[in-house]
Amino acid sequence: MTNTALAAADQGFEKSVDRLFDFVRIQSISTDVAYKDECEKAARWLVVELTGLGFSAEVRPTPGIPMVVAHYTPKSVSAKTPHLLFYGHYDVQPVDPVELWHTPPFEPTRRKDKDGVERMYGRGTADDKGQLMTFVEAARAWISATGGLPIKATFLIEGEEESGSPSLVPFLEANKAELSWDAAFVCDTNMWDPKTPAITTRLRGLVHEEITITGPRIDLHSGLYGGAAMNPIRVLTKILASLHDKNGKITIPGFYDGVKPLPSATKKQWRSLKFSDKKFMGEVGLAVPAGEKGKTVLEHVWARPTAEVNGVWGGYTGVGAKTVLPSKAHAKLTFRLVGRQDPQKILKAFQKFAKDLIPKDCKLEFSGKGGGTPASEISEDNAFIKKTSAALKSEFKREAVLIGSGGSIPIVRSFKDILGMDSVLVGFGLNDDAIHSPNEKYNLSSFHKGIRSWVRIMGALAE
Amino acid sequence: MTNTALAAADQGFEKSVDRLFDFVRIQSISTDVAYKDECEKAARWLVVELTGLGFSAEVRPTPGIPMVVAHYTPKSVSAKTPHLLFYGHYDVQPVDPVELWHTPPFEPTRRKDKDGVERMYGRGTADDKGQLMTFVEAARAWISATGGLPIKATFLIEGEEESGSPSLVPFLEANKAELSWDAAFVCDTNMWDPKTPAITTRLRGLVHEEITITGPRIDLHSGLYGGAAMNPIRVLTKILASLHDKNGKITIPGFYDGVKPLPSATKKQWRSLKFSDKKFMGEVGLAVPAGEKGKTVLEHVWARPTAEVNGVWGGYTGVGAKTVLPSKAHAKLTFRLVGRQDPQKILKAFQKFAKDLIPKDCKLEFSGKGGGTPASEISEDNAFIKKTSAALKSEFKREAVLIGSGGSIPIVRSFKDILGMDSVLVGFGLNDDAIHSPNEKYNLSSFHKGIRSWVRIMGALAE
Repeated sequence: MTNTALAAADQGFEKSVDRLFDFVRIQSISTDVAYKDECEKAARWLVVELTGLGFSAEVRPTPGIPMVVAHYTPKSVSAKTPHLLFYGHYDVQPVDPVELWHTPPFEPTRRKDKDGVERMYGRGTADDKGQLMTFVEAARAWISATGGLPIKATFLIEGEEESGSPSLVPFLEANKAELSWDAAFVCDTNMWDPKTPAITTRLRGLVHEEITITGPRIDLHSGLYGGAAMNPIRVLTKILASLHDKNGKITIPGFYDGVKPLPSATKKQWRSLKFSDKKFMGEVGLAVPAGEKGKTVLEHVWARPTAEVNGVWGGYTGVGAKTVLPSKAHAKLTFRLVGRQDPQKILKAFQKFAKDLIPKDCKLEFSGKGGGTPASEISEDNAFIKKTSAALKSEFKREAVLIGSGGSIPIVRSFKDILGMDSVLVGFGLNDDAIHSPNEKYNLSSFHKGIRSWVRIMGALAE
Repeated sequence: MTNTALAAADQGFEKSVDRLFDFVRIQSISTDVAYKDECEKAARWLVVELTGLGFSAEVRPTPGIPMVVAHYTPKSVSAKTPHLLFYGHYDVQPVDPVELWHTPPFEPTRRKDKDGVERMYGRGTADDKGQLMTFVEAARAWISATGGLPIKATFLIEGEEESGSPSLVPFLEANKAELSWDAAFVCDTNMWDPKTPAITTRLRGLVHEEITITGPRIDLHSGLYGGAAMNPIRVLTKILASLHDKNGKITIPGFYDGVKPLPSATKKQWRSLKFSDKKFMGEVGLAVPAGEKGKTVLEHVWARPTAEVNGVWGGYTGVGAKTVLPSKAHAKLTFRLVGRQDPQKILKAFQKFAKDLIPKDCKLEFSGKGGGTPASEISEDNAFIKKTSAALKSEFKREAVLIGSGGSIPIVRSFKDILGMDSVLVGFGLNDDAIHSPNEKYNLSSFHKGIRSWVRIMGALAE
């Protein structure tokens, strides 16, 4: 059955490109209210397409930009047929600076570049219209070739991802029963390289804090008071400088509670990636990894927590010199979390750590919004991971690598916390796709292999 | 002779107040070009007054606001008669916020307040018109009572002190021969308290530096790079936090070269001041002195050097959180210097200290303007100090205290470096005079005792 569907995908590929181009022409920029109608147009476009495939599809209102929800139940289902949620987003980034685009962002262009690679240029060709159309077109291939999908499927396609998904959590909470299935598949990530597929199984969590130290109650003259009055910058820098020891380890007591060592199989796989620490660091002008000694750069960014100062300020920061001994000093911090690190415990541990370092006449205030997101990790033994992995291998003739992402994808936590589902993150983007930048592109091969991969994954999931 | 002059000072005191009021009515704000004519008017007013006393007085042009230079040579001079320079400034601070003044700033008002103390209110009543008029009126008393001054005198009165004295150094250099005499007397400082006169014999020096650390060449996403890429804020805070050890001592190697221990006589005198560390610290909301353990607060601010961070900035400092790992972090520092600390050596020592703390792939830049001013200290055994001290004791029936000032008074360095003269800093201001603030005032007693003190000092210097 899968082979029949694959043949249909190949045969229909030119039309798949045409449809993607139609979709890209809709200027669904969610961050700018001027484009609200275009966003709604994109939602309706998806509903028409999915309805045409036999989905029961709807534009679902939210206080912001609507969701598209579409369900598909195949005619012949067994008790074992899994029901899976597929997630993508139809909104796109703004196009500024538009003068840097070589072709108009909403007039998608297909071009064979000088390196012989065929690419589609336009805003959303990759992020996330091109990516979500890989599973839409895979569904089309299955349905046109075999009369139906091999699995039960729900497509959830939002229109606010680029503006922080403000309606998503309430929507998931209000529609739990309709959206909670066996697992979620998220198509918004990249391949390891143009030849190597990847499944992202680790996402770091995140919690942030803001700290203000008050020394003297007013700004003082550094001559008249300097030496006697405690400078809050001195206190703040002492706290911030104490966060890491000389080996890059974070010194907050209890910070590593819940951090598990990397399984040796994973460690081995990551080593086999031949990831160049030198190249990765060199691209940003650095050479010496800042993380814990004895661990690789991939471990640093995928599997280890961080304590990062995102901003620091206090005293006089204008031009020239000013002999002020300031009253206040501030810093913003984020902690990236892994394993079972608890954001609330991390915040408390940091707060205690800071308190222990301030003189008793200085004041310490925390003004972070609290909250935070724990890390998301899906076991490599998870059946959905295994099936997806095998399907990708069939398509690419290479083992799919199980990678991490240093960043956070909040949807994954929401699927877990609200809907009780693990997420499998598979995407076909490449690091040079210039998503969020001028001249966003998606390789023809990303789109084609992406569709074929989903055909295979859907087939494998049914088994 | 001195007693005759004192009697004349008492007798003429009401007229001295009238003259000060005339002087205060001139709106000589040097920081605002709109008041340039008023500044020149104040200079001319002084020239008329001093010429009337028998000085050869002139308004002397500069590229900015003019100087007043006036010389007086008594009829009978001996080879031993000293020639002394008296310095003050006729320009005043702006008056904003003018709505906070209880009486108009340029309509001087004499008032007995509820505490029974008579005060003169108005901009410049203290700083520095009231203060400089103490030596002008003392000269008048000597001349009217005895027919002349007992010393040779040059009065140098500038009009740009409140705007950073841009013309002063070139003027001193261009007029060395005319201005280089046995010692300078500067009347722009305060008494220790309303009953205790003070001579400021120690001024800390100053040198500043600005440091920029570059980590990655561009701002990075703290998720994608956090853990691997070195955060320049981490490097900067390590440097800044390392400046002081846990006992408040500065750790830069060689920093204390040239710092002498406080003479035990001075230490004893400062102890006798019954200075309340608690009150001094409490006024600014603090309780724990930040300086070196085992030293008093007066030592911290008058006799010990500092390493102070005046400003720090880097990364995101706006509202809310931003997960940035910044490219750059910055700090501005000043070092207050004492004894024979050399500003250039201090800068070099700090630069080396910072260099030793940065990872080899990070960049370190210094952008301070260099320069700097060493400390000014005048020996307590200096003959002019001794004579001034004795004269003040006769007037106040109390020992004059030899104090320090944590701040820097650049004129003192210029007199030393350009004219080769030590400066004796005597003034009759009080800490609550609100100079630079609304409702600036000068106590009648400050003015009266000030005039009498200069009568005595001039007499003592002639002996």
